[in-house]
Amino acid sequence: MAEPLKVGLAGLGTVGTAVVELLDRGRDKLAARCGRAIDVVAVSARSRGKKRGIELKKFRWFSDPAALAADPAIDVVVEVIGGDGNPAKRVVETALAAGKPVVTANKALLARHGYRLALLAERKGVALNFEASVAGGIPIVKTLREGLNGSSFTRIYGILNGTCNYILSRMEQDRLAFDECLREAQRLGYAEADPSFDVEGHDTAQKLAILSSLAFGTKVDPAAIYVEGISSITLADLDAAAELGYRVKLLGVAVKTDAGIEQRVHPTMVRRESAIAQVMGVTNAVTVDAEGLAPITLVGPGAGGAATASAIVSDLADVARGDRTPPFGRPAARMTASRKAPMQRHEGGYYIRLLARDRPGSAATIARRLAQRQISLESIVQRHEISGLGTDQRGRSGEPVPVILITYATTEDAVRKALAAVRRDRVISGQPQVIRIEKN
Amino acid sequence: MAEPLKVGLAGLGTVGTAVVELLDRGRDKLAARCGRAIDVVAVSARSRGKKRGIELKKFRWFSDPAALAADPAIDVVVEVIGGDGNPAKRVVETALAAGKPVVTANKALLARHGYRLALLAERKGVALNFEASVAGGIPIVKTLREGLNGSSFTRIYGILNGTCNYILSRMEQDRLAFDECLREAQRLGYAEADPSFDVEGHDTAQKLAILSSLAFGTKVDPAAIYVEGISSITLADLDAAAELGYRVKLLGVAVKTDAGIEQRVHPTMVRRESAIAQVMGVTNAVTVDAEGLAPITLVGPGAGGAATASAIVSDLADVARGDRTPPFGRPAARMTASRKAPMQRHEGGYYIRLLARDRPGSAATIARRLAQRQISLESIVQRHEISGLGTDQRGRSGEPVPVILITYATTEDAVRKALAAVRRDRVISGQPQVIRIEKN
Repeated sequence: MAEPLKVGLAGLGTVGTAVVELLDRGRDKLAARCGRAIDVVAVSARSRGKKRGIELKKFRWFSDPAALAADPAIDVVVEVIGGDGNPAKRVVETALAAGKPVVTANKALLARHGYRLALLAERKGVALNFEASVAGGIPIVKTLREGLNGSSFTRIYGILNGTCNYILSRMEQDRLAFDECLREAQRLGYAEADPSFDVEGHDTAQKLAILSSLAFGTKVDPAAIYVEGISSITLADLDAAAELGYRVKLLGVAVKTDAGIEQRVHPTMVRRESAIAQVMGVTNAVTVDAEGLAPITLVGPGAGGAATASAIVSDLADVARGDRTPPFGRPAARMTASRKAPMQRHEGGYYIRLLARDRPGSAATIARRLAQRQISLESIVQRHEISGLGTDQRGRSGEPVPVILITYATTEDAVRKALAAVRRDRVISGQPQVIRIEKN
Repeated sequence: MAEPLKVGLAGLGTVGTAVVELLDRGRDKLAARCGRAIDVVAVSARSRGKKRGIELKKFRWFSDPAALAADPAIDVVVEVIGGDGNPAKRVVETALAAGKPVVTANKALLARHGYRLALLAERKGVALNFEASVAGGIPIVKTLREGLNGSSFTRIYGILNGTCNYILSRMEQDRLAFDECLREAQRLGYAEADPSFDVEGHDTAQKLAILSSLAFGTKVDPAAIYVEGISSITLADLDAAAELGYRVKLLGVAVKTDAGIEQRVHPTMVRRESAIAQVMGVTNAVTVDAEGLAPITLVGPGAGGAATASAIVSDLADVARGDRTPPFGRPAARMTASRKAPMQRHEGGYYIRLLARDRPGSAATIARRLAQRQISLESIVQRHEISGLGTDQRGRSGEPVPVILITYATTEDAVRKALAAVRRDRVISGQPQVIRIEKN
């Protein structure tokens, strides 16, 4: 058997600690699988004395993680510090520049510097593995990089943020408002004190940028992604979705169009009987569409120390076996610039919920404005009571009446212009809710 | 860029033809991804003249596939002949013995000779890849072999036979009997003229044997698997399952128990809201449970020329990149013998449907017999009308009454003995239906 692979671990939080334990517990099995053992030999963290429940004595200690990354006695560096700046960035750059493979869980770093880091890794001929950075325990990075090489991808979409999916699931299952579910998620530790990074879709966008690069060879660039969060979603939307055979999910979607790769993050109506609609709570899921193939969906834990550590150890096993596939599955030099999707040109079905003023001609005016933009309707729901609102809104004369419209495929531009006209006509009250429907 | 990888293709049916087309269409993209092109240079099939819609002129023709496998001008052999005997076996053995990597879609060959072929491949230091042999387009082989190396598997189970899943889905959705759905499946080409290999669970067993070897390091051995098919499943079972929050699926299950790895194939009640319960039609799905991790489920096309060819091309890409992970992810010499699961000792919940004679004391007798075997009941359903039967069976005095029992975890032995006693008591009519519940 070959020499053990000597790991330098930068970062000793929940994930770093879990990696130490997992490598220790699985040592023999991993050695059999990889033809060599994988041993942590050095660690670095901010505080040496902090209680972590693991024995640090047997590891060399580096107070400077970049020094660990540069140390010639270390074969591979695991970066679990996090953040898109230093010290994480310097650690990864130092290791790659020294010709050492790197395993990282750092989506922010990859989202910002992934392209440049991939170029560096390839120039040095070493691996840069990041299975843990997207959808935690789901092996989607490997699947896109190596597992579906025979396929020509046409679309990839997924539930990539557990916090948002937890909130949407709780709203639906327990009939709670968005704010209540958010507070509950914060109480359970699923959401940060400042939840905007999660609920406004930016976390999903970082992960989508990475998946899009793997699937389509676009340069990782979250700035090229159209992003819309879930804070405007109401229980009335979830109920209307259910009634019409849909469920609302925050999806990251990257899709091949005639105009290039369209990358977007927004609340989305998905068919209720689809695999992805069944994914509830903090679970993640990714669906891959390829030419001539039925869709493939991967479902699993999106975060957590154990799932993340498991992904990191898989990446280390690949390094131990000598695998050095390019980071994004193809030469980085061939990756193409990401262009921001012009959402006005987005094509698809739309869910529109609006409050029509209860007076003669409202419905006719709305219908006419849609028709003027060549928008055809698949269904219209207008009832005295929308389930879940609990009151008969038609009962009080003059009160606005909720109307739900589902359109056939049209463009976003047409929908926006038709709704602007409807507002100018003063036949609706307040702002219409618009949710894109993703065919699935 | 390195020299192209020269492929010899043995077998030119639907799958072989699709491989030729896919490699041709994706040549540039694959070359970029693998650092070298992948070119078919030689083919072999029974009939040279048969219409296949592809140009054979540019390939060398071998009437003997074993000669193709031995030819020194060929780098890698793709075997898509099928069957566990010759010529497929000789082709694979010849190629491996000559130090050539092999890619195969042949589950029957692997199920019968997988262990020996893996030993041979490892001795020669070449790859033996078989992604296409299980669950077609789902990258489950790679996921188990390389993608979840950090995990300690505790159970793997899946819907591995599209024919059975199609039949069970049709029965439920269209309220048809088993026989009708089977005929429909035959008409659509989903089932063979002799359907027993599929519907009696043997196809699932071959695939499960391969997955179990990847997950648990058992020697591939379908003979060690307890197998039960779906032909006894009735609409009454599907309806009762729905009412109780379950759905019936034919699952292959390999699970770590104190007594070793239990491998079994049988109709199974799964929780209706689980990812695997949602899988309808010919689609396949596999769920992997690992210590300390939430389950991971992969869903996708289980068969078909395109899905199978895509898996084969992925395997070829791994060969082109020089990957040579051991066939079952660990040295074959370390694989352990599979032992047939003693089903009497199987532990779990049970669904029992029986027809109780409509006379005083029947229910009490059944309850007593179960209690004698320490079987506790989670639920009992006894009604005038079981939905789907369409007649009020209680209406005619003296007619037997359907009773559905769901037990808490118990042993198969206890269930069998309790039901034998109930039959001896003559309080039920006919044979009870027993379906195992899989916790998921």
